[in-house]
Amino acid sequence: MDYSVIVPLVGFAGLLYALFSYYQLSKYSAGNEKMQAIASQIHLGAMAFMRAQYFRLSFFILVVAILLWMFMSWMMMSAFILGAICSALAGFIGMKAAVKGNVRTAEAAQTGIAKALQVAFDSGSVMGLSVASLGLLGLGLIHYVFEWFSLSSVSVISGFSMGASSIALFARVGGGIFTKAADVGSDLVGKVEAGIPEDDPRNPGVIADNVGDNVGDVAGMGADIFESYVGAMVASMAIAATMGGIQVYFGESATSELLILLPLFICVAGLAASFLGLFSVNLFKSLSPATALFFSQIVGAILFLVITGVLLFSTMEMGWKIYVAIFVGHIAGLLIGKITEYYTSSKPIFKIVKASKTGPATNIISGIAVGLESCFAPLLFIVATILTSYQFAGLYGIAMAAVGMLATVGLTMTIDAYGPVADNAGGIVEMSGLGPSVRKITDQLDSVGNTTAAIGKGFAIGSAALTALALFVAFKQAVSSSVSMDITDPYVVVGLFLGSAIVLFAASLTMNSVGKTAEKMVEEIRRQFKEITGLMEGTAVPDTRRCVDIAAKASLKEMIFPGVLAVVSPVLIGFGLNATALAGTLVGALITGVALALLMANAGGAWDNAKKYVESVDDPALGKGSAVHQAAVIGDTVGDPFKDTTGPAMNILIKLMSIVALVIAPLL
Amino acid sequence: MDYSVIVPLVGFAGLLYALFSYYQLSKYSAGNEKMQAIASQIHLGAMAFMRAQYFRLSFFILVVAILLWMFMSWMMMSAFILGAICSALAGFIGMKAAVKGNVRTAEAAQTGIAKALQVAFDSGSVMGLSVASLGLLGLGLIHYVFEWFSLSSVSVISGFSMGASSIALFARVGGGIFTKAADVGSDLVGKVEAGIPEDDPRNPGVIADNVGDNVGDVAGMGADIFESYVGAMVASMAIAATMGGIQVYFGESATSELLILLPLFICVAGLAASFLGLFSVNLFKSLSPATALFFSQIVGAILFLVITGVLLFSTMEMGWKIYVAIFVGHIAGLLIGKITEYYTSSKPIFKIVKASKTGPATNIISGIAVGLESCFAPLLFIVATILTSYQFAGLYGIAMAAVGMLATVGLTMTIDAYGPVADNAGGIVEMSGLGPSVRKITDQLDSVGNTTAAIGKGFAIGSAALTALALFVAFKQAVSSSVSMDITDPYVVVGLFLGSAIVLFAASLTMNSVGKTAEKMVEEIRRQFKEITGLMEGTAVPDTRRCVDIAAKASLKEMIFPGVLAVVSPVLIGFGLNATALAGTLVGALITGVALALLMANAGGAWDNAKKYVESVDDPALGKGSAVHQAAVIGDTVGDPFKDTTGPAMNILIKLMSIVALVIAPLL
Repeated sequence: MDYSVIVPLVGFAGLLYALFSYYQLSKYSAGNEKMQAIASQIHLGAMAFMRAQYFRLSFFILVVAILLWMFMSWMMMSAFILGAICSALAGFIGMKAAVKGNVRTAEAAQTGIAKALQVAFDSGSVMGLSVASLGLLGLGLIHYVFEWFSLSSVSVISGFSMGASSIALFARVGGGIFTKAADVGSDLVGKVEAGIPEDDPRNPGVIADNVGDNVGDVAGMGADIFESYVGAMVASMAIAATMGGIQVYFGESATSELLILLPLFICVAGLAASFLGLFSVNLFKSLSPATALFFSQIVGAILFLVITGVLLFSTMEMGWKIYVAIFVGHIAGLLIGKITEYYTSSKPIFKIVKASKTGPATNIISGIAVGLESCFAPLLFIVATILTSYQFAGLYGIAMAAVGMLATVGLTMTIDAYGPVADNAGGIVEMSGLGPSVRKITDQLDSVGNTTAAIGKGFAIGSAALTALALFVAFKQAVSSSVSMDITDPYVVVGLFLGSAIVLFAASLTMNSVGKTAEKMVEEIRRQFKEITGLMEGTAVPDTRRCVDIAAKASLKEMIFPGVLAVVSPVLIGFGLNATALAGTLVGALITGVALALLMANAGGAWDNAKKYVESVDDPALGKGSAVHQAAVIGDTVGDPFKDTTGPAMNILIKLMSIVALVIAPLL
Repeated sequence: MDYSVIVPLVGFAGLLYALFSYYQLSKYSAGNEKMQAIASQIHLGAMAFMRAQYFRLSFFILVVAILLWMFMSWMMMSAFILGAICSALAGFIGMKAAVKGNVRTAEAAQTGIAKALQVAFDSGSVMGLSVASLGLLGLGLIHYVFEWFSLSSVSVISGFSMGASSIALFARVGGGIFTKAADVGSDLVGKVEAGIPEDDPRNPGVIADNVGDNVGDVAGMGADIFESYVGAMVASMAIAATMGGIQVYFGESATSELLILLPLFICVAGLAASFLGLFSVNLFKSLSPATALFFSQIVGAILFLVITGVLLFSTMEMGWKIYVAIFVGHIAGLLIGKITEYYTSSKPIFKIVKASKTGPATNIISGIAVGLESCFAPLLFIVATILTSYQFAGLYGIAMAAVGMLATVGLTMTIDAYGPVADNAGGIVEMSGLGPSVRKITDQLDSVGNTTAAIGKGFAIGSAALTALALFVAFKQAVSSSVSMDITDPYVVVGLFLGSAIVLFAASLTMNSVGKTAEKMVEEIRRQFKEITGLMEGTAVPDTRRCVDIAAKASLKEMIFPGVLAVVSPVLIGFGLNATALAGTLVGALITGVALALLMANAGGAWDNAKKYVESVDDPALGKGSAVHQAAVIGDTVGDPFKDTTGPAMNILIKLMSIVALVIAPLL
């Protein structure tokens, strides 16, 4: 029992190391004055947004906390608040590092690609390590303290996950609307109407665009993965607490306490493996960035599987059964990432490019066809993971497969957060006029970043699906066993349709929000181009601050409704109809949400890369400004909210709905 | 028992009347020589396609028939073949009438709108009455004959539905690919590249486009609705056959036999009500076409509800319980139609128009947002129908709600088939140069037709959802009661994901097929414009036949895989995994399929009408040729395969998978 203090201690140590890495990052040169000025604009914009966002969310957290106190318990309430704080902190630290890393990566790019990769990677690792460490610290601490006072720990620990999820959904939706409205708005006026290149300093929306990369792709993604990470552990712990026949399953030495602690320790092993994987990138310095990142991930994976193997084989006679579940979960995560890479950077891209030759309409049609097709293989991997892990370790196995997929989050998240840092660095290079040779280096980094981002998205969806499923299983065990869950029970069917309807409605809300906010951006940027004399000639500076404000204000307003919808709808259905309908709702949301997330993420990634391909080839019929290029740009713009706003919001929506259901389960 | 002979007799009488209507239709004037020549081209193209399609399908039917004979029974086999024949016949007769009606509507339009409406409506009514009559004739006959020989009728009757479904899926997919490839192809080259108006006789693809309207929108839609109509009856009969406690539910006089016959008789009542509704349109001649059609539908609905009420209240003590189910089903069908009308012709349209002002990308984004949003209300109506009908009449009630929704199919289908006839008439007016005043009349008819088509699509989806659900319930009752159907059973979950994956995959296949076939059309049309001298000047004629051939050949090839996928996948999952996984698959396909169908149909309809609105307003900033119009045209083109190929294919896919599962259920 006392061993469990290791978990928060490891989390604490990891967090200290992340802060140390952040300190190290500060020591890299931040470049010349102009670069620093631009970076400071991005920094200030991002921080102002986060402050405003957290300020608003604190009210929401307060209200929910009071409700939890009144209807559940003070333990649930404190777990909830701690979860929210940890999630917010993970986003905050990660973003701090990203806005420090971007300008330093730009500076380092002047001395070559290896150095630039190192800086961007270090900056990402602050995020990666913070996410993993804060998860272990928060969850480990709350578990340890409650156990110490002999309070029923497992049933209230879901509050932690709910706190993390709530912050995550708002961060993902708010950040997602911000980043894509800024991106679409500045592209539409800058690239299409004014005919100036991307990241041109004359474009009033360009700082907002770069701010968006940080608040959406870094902070939003971090909160998303943090939530899955915590959710998978919480679900496994909850299932373990109510599981029967444990010794028959896993041998004499297996106990409920052991199974409850196991997910925490598996994640400790994952953090250790991630840590070593992060260091291993130094061994591959001489290779291309893509290969170096890939190899470091493989090193982390192998180490994780070895450490976990030792851990499991030594503690339980039939621990290998759980090992199989963890193993397939981990491999499935890598495979889903790989298949995402295929759809967003291989043959399907050329199909879209070919379709672009007959115009924007066929470009869109083929992109959507690619997105639809891309759902098939990941769903099969998810299915195979569920079947295998269940076969060997029962329902607990399904949850542990999710833990296995997410344990090396320190590494996955690092590689993922590296992308937007490299993207931002490119923007800074462009705006501060460091010249095409430096830009070429950041472009190389960025293109790798696009692939890693796509892989990260696939991984995020796969893990969200398994986590939501694990949380659903925990929910099922938490409600009375007399509650019917038969799929032919009309209430289940009704729930399935309702879950699907809620997800589709939330998707439409976020798509609309991007559209509305982008229109506001377009109006403001057009106004500045018209009213500020000398702007196009470069003799006057744009009012970038105002664009940031507009995007921030609108996205903060727009994030409220989808967020509240996700929290309130399970409560309404649970109490308004019954637990059976709520169970259906969770599954309906899961099925539709995963499909929509995969479709949107992959179609968006494929359109993006199809456009990049068109821009990169030496063919006058393609190339910038051609009709084919225009068609490809339109596809890319449609893909923007798909892949960075609505798609990712689906991940969190399905998890948040499940966790809310799990929290209210005892009242149903 | 002997009463049941009434059903096929009524069906036979209805069919005779439909043939008589067809004969009446022939007597209208077919216009001048030029018009007849064009109409004959459309006629020949459509018939050639149908012949080739049915020829190919006969092999498929043969193979499945043999398998059914070997593994099931000869009764199942004969029911299957009869179902296939009836479905094919319904499509054939409807299309014959449509290609006869189009030119006659064009001719009648010269004398005014009332006359033109009459002709188009008469032509649609041949289809409407054939669908309803053939359903009653075929199903009634097979039920009567099997009962006569004391063969177990209900369990084999699902073969009839499977035969109908198989034909329907191929017809819908093949026709859908044909029509949209021809439409997209001729628009892209004709309207966009060559700058000639729609339906211009110089466009080599224009005949193919008109043929497509018939094979896709008439024959495809007819087969789709025929399948729902039959499926709803079969499901109710199958549920009634295995239902327990009937007398407790519905009173002393209620028997299993009565409940089995009831859906057939409700549809007899529906046919009678439709018949009177069809006639009532004459009473509203002085009103606008839209109002006349709407009123005739209301007359039909009221009559149906009255006749059904008398029937039910007089046969069973608690027949009113079943009446409630039928009532809510019927009202839900009308409401889903109305909400579809809202999304495809009201406020959402202006949102899309506004978004078009910032280009094609925002047009697409807002169209998809509209599509996503439009799923919400119909899903709520479906949910309300399920809950209410179940509350009053159990699982049987759910199936009877579907019957209630579909019973007046004779009327619904008439109004639906009227649309493509009016559309075709407009094409013939344009091609034969009857002048703008006549075109204006057909345009008016066409615009009403667009709305009725959108309503028809909403209705088709709603009824498909309820029918598939009813078939699923029948499947559940047909497999052993020891089969687990718990939603937390991993096999159910796995099935849910698989069902979703299959639907998404089929959707991607059909989208891709339209893209590929359209590209072939584009190449051919471009070639003709380049190689045929004098084509643009109007001194040479295009080789329209070749375009028809290309579209036909490609779509016949492309329809195979999605069709086979739908038939084979339930068999593979049922035998490869188990009945539990298959149950999950059916529900997963249902949830994802309905969402996709609603999203695609409504987004497509909204884009279409947004374009039409832009074209109709007197504003130089909008109007034909403007940037806003171009954006709107792109949205419309993307919407074409959404609303007329992939979306409708989803309806049939979910029904076909359910019916295949029901057929193989005894073997599982």
